[in-house]
This record gives sequence, C-alpha cells and structure tokens, in this order.
Amino acid sequence: MGSAYAAQMKAALIAGGVGPDRVVELAHDLPAHGIEEAAFLLREMARAFPPNTVHVAVVDPGVGGRRLPIAIETRAGPILVGPDNGVLFPLAIELGLRRAYRIDSPKLGRPPRVGTTFDGRDVFAPAAALLAHGRRASTLGPATSPKSYTIPDPVPVPDGARGEVVHTDRFGNLITNIPTRWVDRGVRRLELSSGRAQHRRMAFVTSYESLGRGTLGALGSSFGLVEVAVGEGRASDRLRARVGSRVVLTWRRRSATRTAKAKSARPRKRR
Amino acid sequence: MGSAYAAQMKAALIAGGVGPDRVVELAHDLPAHGIEEAAFLLREMARAFPPNTVHVAVVDPGVGGRRLPIAIETRAGPILVGPDNGVLFPLAIELGLRRAYRIDSPKLGRPPRVGTTFDGRDVFAPAAALLAHGRRASTLGPATSPKSYTIPDPVPVPDGARGEVVHTDRFGNLITNIPTRWVDRGVRRLELSSGRAQHRRMAFVTSYESLGRGTLGALGSSFGLVEVAVGEGRASDRLRARVGSRVVLTWRRRSATRTAKAKSARPRKRR
Amino acid sequence: MGSAYAAQMKAALIAGGVGPDRVVELAHDLPAHGIEEAAFLLREMARAFPPNTVHVAVVDPGVGGRRLPIAIETRAGPILVGPDNGVLFPLAIELGLRRAYRIDSPKLGRPPRVGTTFDGRDVFAPAAALLAHGRRASTLGPATSPKSYTIPDPVPVPDGARGEVVHTDRFGNLITNIPTRWVDRGVRRLELSSGRAQHRRMAFVTSYESLGRGTLGALGSSFGLVEVAVGEGRASDRLRARVGSRVVLTWRRRSATRTAKAKSARPRKRR
Repeated sequence: MGSAYAAQMKAALIAGGVGPDRVVELAHDLPAHGIEEAAFLLREMARAFPPNTVHVAVVDPGVGGRRLPIAIETRAGPILVGPDNGVLFPLAIELGLRRAYRIDSPKLGRPPRVGTTFDGRDVFAPAAALLAHGRRASTLGPATSPKSYTIPDPVPVPDGARGEVVHTDRFGNLITNIPTRWVDRGVRRLELSSGRAQHRRMAFVTSYESLGRGTLGALGSSFGLVEVAVGEGRASDRLRARVGSRVVLTWRRRSATRTAKAKSARPRKRR
Repeated sequence: MGSAYAAQMKAALIAGGVGPDRVVELAHDLPAHGIEEAAFLLREMARAFPPNTVHVAVVDPGVGGRRLPIAIETRAGPILVGPDNGVLFPLAIELGLRRAYRIDSPKLGRPPRVGTTFDGRDVFAPAAALLAHGRRASTLGPATSPKSYTIPDPVPVPDGARGEVVHTDRFGNLITNIPTRWVDRGVRRLELSSGRAQHRRMAFVTSYESLGRGTLGALGSSFGLVEVAVGEGRASDRLRARVGSRVVLTWRRRSATRTAKAKSARPRKRR
Repeated sequence: MGSAYAAQMKAALIAGGVGPDRVVELAHDLPAHGIEEAAFLLREMARAFPPNTVHVAVVDPGVGGRRLPIAIETRAGPILVGPDNGVLFPLAIELGLRRAYRIDSPKLGRPPRVGTTFDGRDVFAPAAALLAHGRRASTLGPATSPKSYTIPDPVPVPDGARGEVVHTDRFGNLITNIPTRWVDRGVRRLELSSGRAQHRRMAFVTSYESLGRGTLGALGSSFGLVEVAVGEGRASDRLRARVGSRVVLTWRRRSATRTAKAKSARPRKRR
C-alpha cells in the first residue's frame, strides 16, 4: 500500500480505539499485483503472532474493488480480515479455518461514506478495531464460504523435486516451494533448471557467506524452503526468474553427474 | 526522509518523553522535492486523526534550510509543526487555522546544538514532544502569519472539468484534483486530454478490477477525486504525466461522442 | 531487511513479551551488502536513545551465516545485540564498550529450530526480549572479544582534508567522514577531488536551499560531517561516487585559488 493509504488505515484504527501501541505493521511493500506472493508472505509473516491478534490484509488489485470483505475465525485464535480473494486462505489453513463471515458495512456502526470506498480504510480497519475489542465476527455479517487459494505444492521427481518460485525477496533471492528437508543430508551440489538456467550446477550451501561474490548457489532459507541466491548479487536478475517461474532441482547424494557438453567443432575458415 | 534522519527524530521524541506507543509514522517515502504533493498528501493522511494529535512534517528541501519552524493551532484540535514553506497550510485550512507561532529554539529548553542543525531532530521533534505534553504553542515563540499554499482548484468546463494531477501513488495511478462528485451519475465514458494523451477516450469505472489488464480508465479514487489508472499497470508511465500535469476531462451523460478518425488512405505502391 | 524477515522478528519479540509499544524500528532499507555503511548509520541513529535501550542489528551478508551472535554491554547503558562482524563496534565504542558475550542459543530457553536458522528471528530477537526484561548479558553465553571495525578516520592535509564517503543518503547526498568543524569558519568555497570530479570548485553553503537547482556544493550535514550535494539532484550520480569513494577537500580562508588550466593548443588542420 502506498503511504497515504496506510496512514488513512491507521487513522481509522485509532478512531476505533486501537492506538499505535497495539498495531504491528507487517509490510507495505508487497509486490503491487500478486495475490499469490502476498498469500505466501502473509502466511509466513503472520503465523507466529499470538492468539489475540487480528490480522488485516489489503492486497492491491482489490482496492476499491467489489470483492466481498470477510473475517475468518481460526482455531489458533487470530482473526483474519481482508478481501475474499484468496489472500487470507493459506494463513487460515495454517491456523485452522473455523468459520468465515461476510462483513456488512452497516453493521460497523459508522455513517456510510459517500462515493468510492477504500475497503482498507472504510471496512477492514473499522472491523478489525471492533474485533480487537472483543466483538464476535458473527455479528458483522452472515456466514460465508471463503474463496480458496492454495500455495502450489512441490512434486518429488527421481533424485530431486519440481516446484516453483513463491517469493523473491528484496535482495533478489528466489524462494522456492521445495522444502529444505526434502534434500538429502549429504547433498553438496545440485542442478537447477529454471527459465534461462538450463541444467545449471550449483553448490548447496548452509549460508550466504559460503557463496563467493557473484556465485550462484542454493541454500536452505529461513522459510524452511530451498532458496536460490547469488553471493552479494541478485539471483532473480541472473536467472530472469520471478514468482511463478518453474524450478526443477536434482541432486545425488555423493556427487552430481557431470553434464556432458558436446562442443560442436567449428571448422576454421581457410585463408 | 531517509532512515537515519527518521531514526534521529524518533530518538528526539523519546528524549522528550514521547515513546513509540504514542507515535504514528505517516510516511517516509514522499517524493524528495515536492512541497505541492506533500501538502496534498499530508492533508489527506492527517485529516482523520483525533483532536489531541500533534502532526510533524519535514519536507526535504528545507532540511537544514533557513525557513522558520512554526507551530499552527487548529480549531479541530490538532497542532501542526513543521517548516513555514506552505506544506502545513492545506491541512491547517482543512482543520481550521486558528493561530500560528514561530518556534524559537531557545524556548525548547535544550542546549543549542553546535554546527548545522537538522530541524526535524533539533526543533520540530522537541517542540512536538512539548506540545504533546500540553505545552501551549504560544509559549514557543511569537505569533506569525504562516506562508500560504493552496492546492490548485479545478475549473468546470462545458461537459467536463479542467484540473491537474495532484498525486501519483506508488502504483502509478494519477490522482487529479477533480472531485468525483462533479462527474454526472450516468457517465460511463469520458475523454481525457493530458500530456501525450490527446483526447483519449476511456471508461469511467467503479473499481480497478473493472479495468482489463493494460486498459486505461478513470475511476473515483478513495480521495474523493477522479483518478486515472491502467489495469495492473502504471498510468503515470503510459501518459508520461506527473504531479502538476494538466488534465482535461470531458463527458456526456448518455454516450460519449465518437471521435471521428479520418484514416488517410495510403495508396499502395505499384510493383 | 525484507518485510517478511522484519515481521518474523517482530513476532519473536512479541513472543518474548516485547510488544509494539516498546519497539522502535530504526531502518529496513540499509544498503544490502555493506557492513561499513551500516556500522556508520547504526552509530548515528542509535547514539541518542536512552540507557535502557536494547539495540538489535541484522546486517544482510550474515543472515543465515555462521558469524557468532553477540551481546555488548555499554557504559552508557544500552545493550547491543547482533552478529559479531563489526557492525556493532562503532556504536559500542561511542557508548563505551564494557563487556561482550557470545549468545548461546540453548541459553535462550526456546526449543531449537530445525533446519536453517535466521539469526534475527531465532537468536537476536529472543535475546533482545530477555535483555529488555532485565536478564544480564552474561547469562547468555561466555565473555568474548568482539570483532572490531573502525569507521575510517579523515586525514588533515595543508588547507584541507582527505577522507572518504561514509554514507549516501536516499537523496544521493554524499556524507564524508570529514568533520564540519575542520573547515575554517570563513570558508565559502572549496575544491573537491573525488572519482570523476577532479578538482571541482564548489560553494560551501549552510543549507540545501542555497544551492541552485543542479548546482554542486558542500555543506555541513546534520551528522556534523561535510556533505556534498546537488541542488534538487543526486550528487552520487553526478560524481559517480559511493561509500568508500576517496574525497579530498581543499580550501583557503579568503578565496579559493584559481586552478590554472593549461589548455593544450591543438593546431588546426590545414585544408
């Protein structure tokens, strides 16, 4: 969200009795038009917050849109508020989806706003303030079945896995959906196939520091997922990869196979 | 403001007894050199905060500059602190300008800083901390008449309005100064003239979602002002427009007139 | 730090009993791969915080790295937590380095995390939460001798100083390590030699406003250090300079000497 939009939401929270001492801002700089990456990040960012948390998500394509605003109660405790476009779903599954309710603006007890609404400011923030004060989600509107969205699953292949990039962080590191624990303990090298990088071999290391400057490599990210990085560089640029790019990783326990490269002999021109 | 600068202001607020539980950060990423856009955004961001708020604005060209620091009391309650360069003025008018005072550094009760000052850290933040604790603005310096700046007014024209871009948000949407309520209810299409876009016809829609990917259109923004956007794209790039760019919007209630496009018949070359 | 990473640290702080009312975020947008600039900025940002502060620094190359996590007690009161790569050292010296301790994860009383750790989330934040609640650093691990890093010292030269750029702020201003107080009071012009700018003469002004649009000049920055700036422009682009770029400033009290430029007479070609 741009700054003016976030500020207006904070004002709406304060108007609802939720001051800055109770607000944690997770992120404003999510990619502008991607529900997939936002859903992944929201789950990763929000999973560790305490049971009495109300999470509010606004993902861009819906600003001013006509998707229904919803509130989702979870078994773990947190309540999720946002547009019913799937962005809340992976976090809801993670925390245990209990019930979802549509949020009807008139139930928020505020004078309706004339003209185009900004759901974050006019619906989500006021609803979140009420929920933070103990109001039940069921009082905000009728029960509903939320739109589902599932972060794509990786697929095991012989000596490897097929998956995709689910997040590029601000350093250009590519976080895949392939769990680090899928990679056998003994693996030290693996082979990557993604976009431009056809069967590129790389080291599987345990820290960024182990990657020489400019060297491509893979490591276990802090998300518990395999990440492709370049030492002090941007893997996303190097591989021209981004969220959704297909990734195939293959490895062998002892040593990776040498890829045979048949160099076509070019006959020299005679003079 | 860059990060180190904002951090130093937060330290100054804490030194003045205003901890993080009472600070709301509105924005750090305003365009570096534009009082006009900052004044617009400050008004939009700050108008909904409660009466006991002290707003502090630092706009870049004045960092270390010699413009007087001022505090403005408003009828609505909030006190505005910042440079006397006009950036506070539209918000002050919105909240009802009551009285303005110059801030004299010695009145802040801190040892004067040797060398170049950074007004945000050395004057605005300490003054804001005092005002937040109930000190009257009139005790900080003599009454003064603040520099005025008015956000440009739109002008009605037959079947339309002439205005300008007052904000480009981080998605490249162009927010104009033309109120959405000026557009007749029945309007579904309008014509835009701005920069490169000479008489471009576009849909007037109610949400971003209604715009096909890459399609230019207009809608009522959450600011209550007509906004020009591109579905999942950047209108500012498409139209090469920015803050200050002139905009003419014309419309007809039923259906927009077809612009006659005389295609010049190019005779084919004979072979 | 990218957003998801910062959010995970906030969750870890909350889990440790440190809510948003007690957290001040200094900066997320430090240059991705520079301990030198981060160490400078941390010192400048953090020096003015109160004695009961716990400062946490995560600098990128070490995310997931094998550098030891440390906690440094200072005479001024604040405790510094972060990687032992030198980034904490200049601030520690500024606040008076008392004792440093290694942080042993098992001492944090949390179940060890399986797989790759993210020190900011898994070690620094939990340690900071304990320290904020009064736990002594000496209980977290054995005493250690922290890795030192010293921000480079400027060197006086006849009528001037030799130094380097220690920070480029988001406006492209170049902050050098040459103290403003080294420049004689009467100086109004000086000569800069840095990168492409061989012996460029410029005004020494007291505010950005004094610089005409596009004009290069020097001024005393709010860091107390000489800064090179371009009026409403980016000095870093103009001079192709960045952190680490060498800078030589020379001046004379009354008037700067005219640099004799012997233009080599190119004989014209005869026709």
